[in-house]
Amino acid sequence: MTPEEFRRHGRQVVDWIADYLAGVASHPVMSQVKPGEIRDALPARPPERGEPFEAVLADLDRILLPGITHWQHPGFFGYFPSNASGPAILGDLLSSGLGVQGMLWVTSPACTELETVVVDWLADLLGLPAHFRTDARGGGVIQDSASSACLVALLAALHRAGGGRVAVEGIDRRYTLYVSSQTHSSLEKAARIAGLGAAGVRVVDVDPGTLAMDPERLRTVLAKDVAAGAVPAMVCATVGTTSTTAIDPVAAIGEVCREHGVWLHVDAAYAGVAAVCPEFRWLNDGLGEYADSYSTNPHKWLLTNFDCNVLWTADRTPLIGALSILPEYLTNAATSAGSVVDYRDWQVPLGRRFRALKLWSVIRWYGAEGLRAHIRKCVGLAADVASWIAADPGFELHEQPPLGLVCFRPLWPGLVAAEADRATTRLMELLNAGGSLYLTHTRVAGRVVLRLAVGGAATERRHVEQAWEQIRWEHAALSATLPG
Amino acid sequence: MTPEEFRRHGRQVVDWIADYLAGVASHPVMSQVKPGEIRDALPARPPERGEPFEAVLADLDRILLPGITHWQHPGFFGYFPSNASGPAILGDLLSSGLGVQGMLWVTSPACTELETVVVDWLADLLGLPAHFRTDARGGGVIQDSASSACLVALLAALHRAGGGRVAVEGIDRRYTLYVSSQTHSSLEKAARIAGLGAAGVRVVDVDPGTLAMDPERLRTVLAKDVAAGAVPAMVCATVGTTSTTAIDPVAAIGEVCREHGVWLHVDAAYAGVAAVCPEFRWLNDGLGEYADSYSTNPHKWLLTNFDCNVLWTADRTPLIGALSILPEYLTNAATSAGSVVDYRDWQVPLGRRFRALKLWSVIRWYGAEGLRAHIRKCVGLAADVASWIAADPGFELHEQPPLGLVCFRPLWPGLVAAEADRATTRLMELLNAGGSLYLTHTRVAGRVVLRLAVGGAATERRHVEQAWEQIRWEHAALSATLPG
Repeated sequence: MTPEEFRRHGRQVVDWIADYLAGVASHPVMSQVKPGEIRDALPARPPERGEPFEAVLADLDRILLPGITHWQHPGFFGYFPSNASGPAILGDLLSSGLGVQGMLWVTSPACTELETVVVDWLADLLGLPAHFRTDARGGGVIQDSASSACLVALLAALHRAGGGRVAVEGIDRRYTLYVSSQTHSSLEKAARIAGLGAAGVRVVDVDPGTLAMDPERLRTVLAKDVAAGAVPAMVCATVGTTSTTAIDPVAAIGEVCREHGVWLHVDAAYAGVAAVCPEFRWLNDGLGEYADSYSTNPHKWLLTNFDCNVLWTADRTPLIGALSILPEYLTNAATSAGSVVDYRDWQVPLGRRFRALKLWSVIRWYGAEGLRAHIRKCVGLAADVASWIAADPGFELHEQPPLGLVCFRPLWPGLVAAEADRATTRLMELLNAGGSLYLTHTRVAGRVVLRLAVGGAATERRHVEQAWEQIRWEHAALSATLPG
Repeated sequence: MTPEEFRRHGRQVVDWIADYLAGVASHPVMSQVKPGEIRDALPARPPERGEPFEAVLADLDRILLPGITHWQHPGFFGYFPSNASGPAILGDLLSSGLGVQGMLWVTSPACTELETVVVDWLADLLGLPAHFRTDARGGGVIQDSASSACLVALLAALHRAGGGRVAVEGIDRRYTLYVSSQTHSSLEKAARIAGLGAAGVRVVDVDPGTLAMDPERLRTVLAKDVAAGAVPAMVCATVGTTSTTAIDPVAAIGEVCREHGVWLHVDAAYAGVAAVCPEFRWLNDGLGEYADSYSTNPHKWLLTNFDCNVLWTADRTPLIGALSILPEYLTNAATSAGSVVDYRDWQVPLGRRFRALKLWSVIRWYGAEGLRAHIRKCVGLAADVASWIAADPGFELHEQPPLGLVCFRPLWPGLVAAEADRATTRLMELLNAGGSLYLTHTRVAGRVVLRLAVGGAATERRHVEQAWEQIRWEHAALSATLPG
């Protein structure tokens, strides 16, 4: 494709996206296709001869769109948000157009240095501890996901716990990882990947009300493990769990970690970015005193397209110690002089895209002001939904939502727990089939609970009002069909 | 940013990229900035108020471009190519615009099903074994990099070798991994990450001429390990090593693997895509009979922007067994019914972008024909360069290049080895400082060797002719300044 052809087709694609974003609310939020439907509509064999780009766009409309669940729809309230925004899309487009590899500083210095600057900017915006900055002993790095950030943090923690032995000898002792029942599943996955296995993961009890990790239980479990000869490597505290945005008490957990010299990773994948607002700076409580690593996802709630997680460490040395290997074909003067950052040593893959461009574009376009306005809008709308639920006798609010996620249960008088859970699931299915909103679920104390996460860039007050109306209406309609 | 603002700025960015690609040859290939120069030119603090998008583009030109090493420059011959192309850039742009999360089938069915179709298309284009296809027991998946593909293959291999124990009990025995001295460093990194440590990695000798792994040495090392109580988990054979594109004898290695029931992973990160041409189908020799997993990078040489590695397995069961964990908030009817693929269970991260769009766009735009033409152009030009080197008494060709990478050494009569190596390095630095071409180096049998990889979409005959002229000229000029 020549540059002039690119110019022409590029405009077509930009127009396609502008039209898509302008009309996204006209699609059903959740795709209604059956397994195999999209696959069957596509040719089984690749084309022998090239096709015009218009054919790609036509098939996107005709075949793929019905198979898309529209995460940017204003009625998307499922999982957590996965914000896209204009400046992020364009920042990523610039990255694709430049097509540089940022594995080493020397392979494109601007790719590394802009990343250092923007992760420091983000640390500044969130009010993170000064020692997380790259010009101190720490440093931030863009990862593809919180899963990878947790894995990398665990590898650094193992490196420190083993005094460097893990990189050489492997998992030669009973290293252990501490989570709660509410910790994201990526921590267990990281433990499996790192060779600890599920058996190396200790699940610490939570407070049954708040679902936050109980630091006293952690203290007991840790002491017992140490007495039995285990080597505790890392504790993961979560600020805003995936299930219900429970907030683990970081400072109290950190105190226990300090007693045993255990690495404290704080996973704030969803919630952390809310600290752009001064009124949510309490989310950082304990970080400065206790956290060895911390991560949050601008690609969830901070208007930056996936993939853009940022991981910070208080001390980058064990991270690099765990992951650095330098073959001859990657040696270069800048690396040898120790005067540069090579982010390949801060992550699992070797290669890396120029992802800093999209975060840079987002921060510059919105400014701190614009980012705060986005977070405040979502938190405000979530508080409204929570107040409507709390005031309605047909529903039960799980907890007052600290941020944008509202967890609640429809009530089904006369039904026993298992029947009521089935009715709740059925209600969710009916709502999601309706096409104007999309919810997902979790379980709290064994019971099915609905999750309504307000986080979309396009979501306004009228969308949550409509969603609540529809939830009430479907609940009443379904209730009427049930016995009792 | 409203859709209309996106339309306007999107056109600006498309024009910027079209102009950049049209004029990329006017930049010095390798950035000449010093460490810290870009960082110092950027504001230390993020903006409080939003800025116009034009300010981002202006700073891209003014501050960032001097810090870019231009991987799409026709004179870029370093490392391996990292092809960008118009249709790939636009496919990725569509992915950003849609902003969907493909972690589960249900979170956007088209994201999963298009991926299944395009990786099957690619298997077809490359002539890969039928059992690698998703409708058989195997299946392909897009990973971010060959590093991640190797790690995931190793985790699947450990799962099989341990009979499922690793996910539960962790690394509880002496699992071992077999590579050669020429295997990519990501394999040692994967072994470290997976808890085997460097001590779990056995480096098998290579043939000193071809630098290919010696299967008889592998047989000896494996047998010795087994006798000593180790549990061999995986052998990695490489088709086209990073250093010199050496080709390990996959079938002979596979025979040894079969004797011991060891997982064979074939890493063809750079070379594998050349099999789009029937005359390079020999690159697949042994795959169908012996390989448990195989991976190649369309993001290197197949015109698809980073990140796009494809990993195939002959049997997806151990892969999913190693990586699948299902928390309540991700449960859904389609997954429970077992009727769909959830690619989150085929990779380290949970979240995933809609990367299939770019590979789909590339295959449709170029067709099989166009992809073959690109590979043939590069291999033909590399053969020309090799013939010029072989015919010049001032240079020594390492081996006849099988594909697009030419390895060679300038000769420095009168200098001893260490001095000659320093002169070779100096020559490379002078050439790279000149700005019209970019080379990297490796070591073969202890000696510094230059690598000239012909792989760029924009690279034509005149660019390699000019490069060769300049290499000869600089070599002569530097020779004249040396004693002897």
